[in-house]
Amino acid sequence: MTTGGERFTAPVVLTCGAGFPVLRDGVVDVGPDGRIAHVGPRADAPELDGPVHALPGLLMPGMVNTHCHTPMLSLRGMGGDLPLMSWLQEVMWPAEARFTEEDVRIGMTAGAVELLRTGCTTSVEMYFVADAVIEAVLTAGSRVLLTPGIIAAPGWDRLGTWEEMRDGVSARIDAGGLRSGPHERVELGYGPHSAYTLPPEALTTTAEAARERGALLHVHVAESRQEDLAQREEFGSVPAQLEAVGALGGRVLAAHSVQVSAEDIGLYRRHGVAVAHCPGSNAKLAAGLAPVGDLRRAGVRIGLGTDGPASGDDLDLWHQARLAALFARVREDDAAALTAADVLLMATRDGAEAIDRADIGVLEPGRWADLVHVDLDDQAFVDPDDDAQLLSNLVWAGGSRLVRDVWVAGERVIDDGEPVKVDAERARADLRAVAARLHT
Amino acid sequence: MTTGGERFTAPVVLTCGAGFPVLRDGVVDVGPDGRIAHVGPRADAPELDGPVHALPGLLMPGMVNTHCHTPMLSLRGMGGDLPLMSWLQEVMWPAEARFTEEDVRIGMTAGAVELLRTGCTTSVEMYFVADAVIEAVLTAGSRVLLTPGIIAAPGWDRLGTWEEMRDGVSARIDAGGLRSGPHERVELGYGPHSAYTLPPEALTTTAEAARERGALLHVHVAESRQEDLAQREEFGSVPAQLEAVGALGGRVLAAHSVQVSAEDIGLYRRHGVAVAHCPGSNAKLAAGLAPVGDLRRAGVRIGLGTDGPASGDDLDLWHQARLAALFARVREDDAAALTAADVLLMATRDGAEAIDRADIGVLEPGRWADLVHVDLDDQAFVDPDDDAQLLSNLVWAGGSRLVRDVWVAGERVIDDGEPVKVDAERARADLRAVAARLHT
Repeated sequence: MTTGGERFTAPVVLTCGAGFPVLRDGVVDVGPDGRIAHVGPRADAPELDGPVHALPGLLMPGMVNTHCHTPMLSLRGMGGDLPLMSWLQEVMWPAEARFTEEDVRIGMTAGAVELLRTGCTTSVEMYFVADAVIEAVLTAGSRVLLTPGIIAAPGWDRLGTWEEMRDGVSARIDAGGLRSGPHERVELGYGPHSAYTLPPEALTTTAEAARERGALLHVHVAESRQEDLAQREEFGSVPAQLEAVGALGGRVLAAHSVQVSAEDIGLYRRHGVAVAHCPGSNAKLAAGLAPVGDLRRAGVRIGLGTDGPASGDDLDLWHQARLAALFARVREDDAAALTAADVLLMATRDGAEAIDRADIGVLEPGRWADLVHVDLDDQAFVDPDDDAQLLSNLVWAGGSRLVRDVWVAGERVIDDGEPVKVDAERARADLRAVAARLHT
Repeated sequence: MTTGGERFTAPVVLTCGAGFPVLRDGVVDVGPDGRIAHVGPRADAPELDGPVHALPGLLMPGMVNTHCHTPMLSLRGMGGDLPLMSWLQEVMWPAEARFTEEDVRIGMTAGAVELLRTGCTTSVEMYFVADAVIEAVLTAGSRVLLTPGIIAAPGWDRLGTWEEMRDGVSARIDAGGLRSGPHERVELGYGPHSAYTLPPEALTTTAEAARERGALLHVHVAESRQEDLAQREEFGSVPAQLEAVGALGGRVLAAHSVQVSAEDIGLYRRHGVAVAHCPGSNAKLAAGLAPVGDLRRAGVRIGLGTDGPASGDDLDLWHQARLAALFARVREDDAAALTAADVLLMATRDGAEAIDRADIGVLEPGRWADLVHVDLDDQAFVDPDDDAQLLSNLVWAGGSRLVRDVWVAGERVIDDGEPVKVDAERARADLRAVAARLHT
């Protein structure tokens, strides 16, 4: 018997675990510690001493967004028709140079609400001003794997040297631990921006600091053909450079990885490098289509990412799931290259695996009860009793618009589409004020 | 003075007309005939003797979906991971063989509601059982350019020979005219399925029949690399075959046109052939990416299409607009290949032009008052006073979820997201019953 917990029942439960069954008439029990105590058919469920929430829709794990810069929300849509390097250097960086700490908090708060509303409970954030990001996440009730940015590019020295940025992360981890906050909502890692914005020594020593602490190293790699010409001339490729300077070997998440060769993929496999695949942002900025099929066949772990809202505008991982399938099918010339089930797993379980997190992304006992309740009472589902059609309709005709309720560690954070812990109107008004100021 | 009409005011009006201005504090006057009487800034508006509807959001023209098979809605998601020819021959055609006339009416009714809800007021439909399609459209209050299917493929002879199908369309036009229904909601054309499902003579004579009547010829062309091997061996390409058999020269809409060469594009230009671009369906079925940049540079007219809901699942032209931009940027290696403004125009004005319709797709006097009211009170818009950011946010972070109200010829058909003329619950229940039966 589960004592003191709560039970959620739903006509459909997607565990996103092994075998990926479509569980009919299922239950998910949540213990008082906020972790899942039991998952299975209702007929076989243990007795429970606690309340039962009978949900009418589909229950699935919270999604994991493996690459984001959510605090940039106030810049959404700026420079939307520029290629990566012009967009970054001529529009984004000058605008970000005017960000105050409060602007970062406001962007992250409004963004965390958007992420939660679409069913994404965890995001991997590369951004600056860690205190503001953490405060916003704890306010909204989401989860974050925050990898504070480390960069040495024009204008960014206002935030200090790359050594100071690196050491700031180390000091923060050494003081407060790798994970902290209620229900371990905050994990810290290192966010060296890229090989083209940092000296090799920064990559080497930041990776060492991350490995010493078991922390994630989260870095932009081979996003476009134009960004890393110097690095490629010297080392052949950015992955080769990262290997050469000793940056690989620990927990490494290579965002984008669009322009990677078979050799680079082999190197990812050897070193256990994971990829944050951001198809929407990559296409919008004309960076290209990542070789997802080759990466998967090589056994490289791949999660999905929206990228920051200035290039991945709607922060909607459901859209990225569709795009991942569409792009892979075109690239592989194979309509089964990525199925609906494949991309649902990429958005949940695979994302958790890509960041070495065995505590989220799947509904199974011991993991955090990060739950998403999706409306099944919608015309998207034309034959919901058929498993294959249900998954297909969920991905291709449903998506974020059907997300009704969201829980993180068993705590409800979205109730019928509305945030529970944040005043959404206030958050949005604050965001607009920031955007209007940055535009003048 | 406009007499007896109605006025709509809105803080933002997108006419989608020449120059594509973002009109602030605009008015759209609608005459008693259902046509637009005046568009412009409120400050310069003529006096009006009639009611004024003060809308709080953005007003734009109803979208034009240039390629669809909406009655297939009950098959949504079936065979979702198969390539084109297997999907068509092994899953779709056998399922469609079991369609009754009532199934077609039910699919089209529920589908018309979906189209209207996303802001699409006109769809070009290639389907069978014309009476059922027309009844459904008139019930829902949308517009259709119906090109009844003409095909000679296994199983389809249950509906007659291709000659009978062709002559059926001719007889219908000769009896009732090219356009009919309240506010000319129905236009008829010819829908020869493709060069690979019809003998050359069928293409020749159907095109002649269409030209004689000034009707649209709507045909699948060069969707995948596998479908038309025999045609390509004999004629070089399907466009070359269409030219050789005399099928070009009138109003011709070539759906898909993915696998087209520079010569094919030249031929399209010479004959004024328009393209219905369906990026989502083409990618999902692994057909490829159409050369939209080359087609545009050649001056070929291009509209957007969802394709049928079995491959273009959500019938959401906003998604197709995003995909068109993403795919073009990747294919052209250019982040400005298609801008947010470009794809908004593709979904409205360009779609109307692709089907030679000067009466829809743009908000200007004389055209039908097919209007869409989009919510601006959403976090998608972070700086709505900036024109460029407004358009970018509308396309990349907004979309169909923000559509609130829709009018066709000045008649409201969607009111705060709900259909006015159709019992949506009933339509959906009917649809599920059809889907469940076809699945057994």
